Amino acid sequence: MKEELLDLNNVMQALKKCLPTNQERIGLHEPYFGGNEWKYVKECLDTGWVSSVGKYVDQFEQRLAEYTGAKKAVAVVNGTAALHIALILAGVIRDDEVIVPTLTFIATTNAITYCGAVPHFADSEERTLGLDPYKLEAYLQEITDVRTEGCFNKKTGRRIKAVVPMHTFGHPVDLDPLVEVCHKFKLELIEDAAESLGSFYKGRHTGNWGKLSILSFNGNKTITTGGGGAILTNDEELGKMAKHITTTAKLPHKWNFYHDQIGFNYRMPNINAALGCAQLEQLPEFLVRKRALAQGYMERFSAIPGMRIFREPGFAQSNYWLNVLLLEEDYKQYRDAILEATNSIDIMTRPAWILMHELPIFVSCPHMDLTVAENIETRLINIPSSVKLSKNEL
Amino acid sequence: MKEELLDLNNVMQALKKCLPTNQERIGLHEPYFGGNEWKYVKECLDTGWVSSVGKYVDQFEQRLAEYTGAKKAVAVVNGTAALHIALILAGVIRDDEVIVPTLTFIATTNAITYCGAVPHFADSEERTLGLDPYKLEAYLQEITDVRTEGCFNKKTGRRIKAVVPMHTFGHPVDLDPLVEVCHKFKLELIEDAAESLGSFYKGRHTGNWGKLSILSFNGNKTITTGGGGAILTNDEELGKMAKHITTTAKLPHKWNFYHDQIGFNYRMPNINAALGCAQLEQLPEFLVRKRALAQGYMERFSAIPGMRIFREPGFAQSNYWLNVLLLEEDYKQYRDAILEATNSIDIMTRPAWILMHELPIFVSCPHMDLTVAENIETRLINIPSSVKLSKNEL
Repeated sequence: MKEELLDLNNVMQALKKCLPTNQERIGLHEPYFGGNEWKYVKECLDTGWVSSVGKYVDQFEQRLAEYTGAKKAVAVVNGTAALHIALILAGVIRDDEVIVPTLTFIATTNAITYCGAVPHFADSEERTLGLDPYKLEAYLQEITDVRTEGCFNKKTGRRIKAVVPMHTFGHPVDLDPLVEVCHKFKLELIEDAAESLGSFYKGRHTGNWGKLSILSFNGNKTITTGGGGAILTNDEELGKMAKHITTTAKLPHKWNFYHDQIGFNYRMPNINAALGCAQLEQLPEFLVRKRALAQGYMERFSAIPGMRIFREPGFAQSNYWLNVLLLEEDYKQYRDAILEATNSIDIMTRPAWILMHELPIFVSCPHMDLTVAENIETRLINIPSSVKLSKNEL
Repeated sequence: MKEELLDLNNVMQALKKCLPTNQERIGLHEPYFGGNEWKYVKECLDTGWVSSVGKYVDQFEQRLAEYTGAKKAVAVVNGTAALHIALILAGVIRDDEVIVPTLTFIATTNAITYCGAVPHFADSEERTLGLDPYKLEAYLQEITDVRTEGCFNKKTGRRIKAVVPMHTFGHPVDLDPLVEVCHKFKLELIEDAAESLGSFYKGRHTGNWGKLSILSFNGNKTITTGGGGAILTNDEELGKMAKHITTTAKLPHKWNFYHDQIGFNYRMPNINAALGCAQLEQLPEFLVRKRALAQGYMERFSAIPGMRIFREPGFAQSNYWLNVLLLEEDYKQYRDAILEATNSIDIMTRPAWILMHELPIFVSCPHMDLTVAENIETRLINIPSSVKLSKNEL
């Protein structure tokens, strides 16, 4: 019988030592409401302003812009809707191709299909867990033909219009070289920052490198509005247009309903924005706590052979939205055993998403060599990362 | 100088007599929170269950099904999203045509375009303010060719797949003859019941005649969830599919993210559903109050020549979501004067929506003769209809 490399018990002990002992069930990422949530929500109920217009929508948008440093933020129903609109405003149309990492949540890919466009899958790098700009550049060099009208895939004949990197589990991709690649190949950059509110790249908030970018405030994110998302942009005109087409493209008038284009009903209700305002006030504190939790994990797991906790690269300050336990090659055979052991005692952990190019619905989409992402996927486990799990006092 | 037919003062007096005197501004339809709203919403905050799963989502769906008599209700982010999904599940695909009244809110028409399909505009009848089934039948007889594969527009060559009547301002269309037309021409029926929660046709709740139907809980509706909508169906399988594709089409698994088709992120957050549960409990009372307000309007305005308040036809029990003041032909020249006079003293009124076929974005879509809708549009004014305006004690 082959000798076991791993003592599963050690892993479980390390994990438990980092986590509170007084909780029956440790979720992966649960919301924390410790501020003005009830006050603001109650005000919506008391005044009747719960729906698509209201002061909290305006306030939330303004404060998101302030916090991220983007010129304009537009609050919408969720991150998927934000992606859909960002792609439309970046000029993605039917039969375009859009570069997207295969290691991402399905929302990024679905939104591309809503435009009638085709996802084109790119590989990730272990340094960031996100899109590898250098590998992408070499690939585009080989397969594309850059003309005055744009970048064309020589194999499919389709235009490649945009690149949508995703800051995986909150960890920023290497944006500077990616911006250069986009410039060189005439591609629009849209950052899927759904997971990276509170994450910075070279001192500036993620979401400021692309033409547009998006955030998510789903219940499992660093801050939540119940369900919600936002579009960010530094282009005032695009910002105005984002507001316009997410609110049915109706022109302002005292009573007439004149819509000047096909619009969407993607506005965030005021009651959800109220929650968002209260959550955003606590974000700096949340980030301190999440960082402390990550630090604790790193220390504990440094003593266990065969694995490590993912650490932000030098250019990044990560929100550590979801902490990542990365197994070494020789230890990846234990991934499922760790998943089973933790979940069986109600410590929630999960593997990476199934890679997009492996889902039957996207299996025929174009892609580059994806061996790094394929390898990461076999070795990655997300471990509990809620704000409330930190032992720092709130 | 031509003698004036209308004494505007009389109209203003009639309106004021029906409305409370202690309010600075009388909205068209404002929400009323008089029940368990605080309690349920606070419970979401206290327990942390604010997002896409939670007991209020389940409860709201169950209670909507009970109230409407539909087998299955699926709560979603808004009525537009519900329409999009209903059209997809009814089999509407790219380049199909879908019959829709020109007198409707733009959501009905937009949702058709999201499927890549083409709106085909139909006329309304004055009896219901909604789609005229008899006129539609005569028109389809003339322009279509019904084959084994479906109903084809002889002029455009496109398949006509579905009919989406809208119960205008809450008043039910004449469903029985419409069902017959759909059957005869192999068309799927989808009821846009966004405005008609609490409205019945021949004793049964609207939304039960089509293959699928939809509701809206926007802030201006009879009950609100902030923003929200629902898909209704009496087909269990379609109901399951509606839930599946509105929740990213993910198959249940303890940790894997396997999505078996292109899905949408259209789920209603639990905090919004909590509001909906509390509102739904009050719906019967709301309907009594809205009916009393409508009755008051009818009585007051019966004394004014040249106009009348729209009254439900014999087959319908309307929720009177938005009361309608209909001017007679000779008096329609006063529509804008009435709109100006009322809005200038903060009594909100508005005309019908601009007809869909008159919006530049839809001007090239196919349509039948639309003279009845065109005529209604020039004579119609919506007047304040909020629950709280009724003088009935709550």
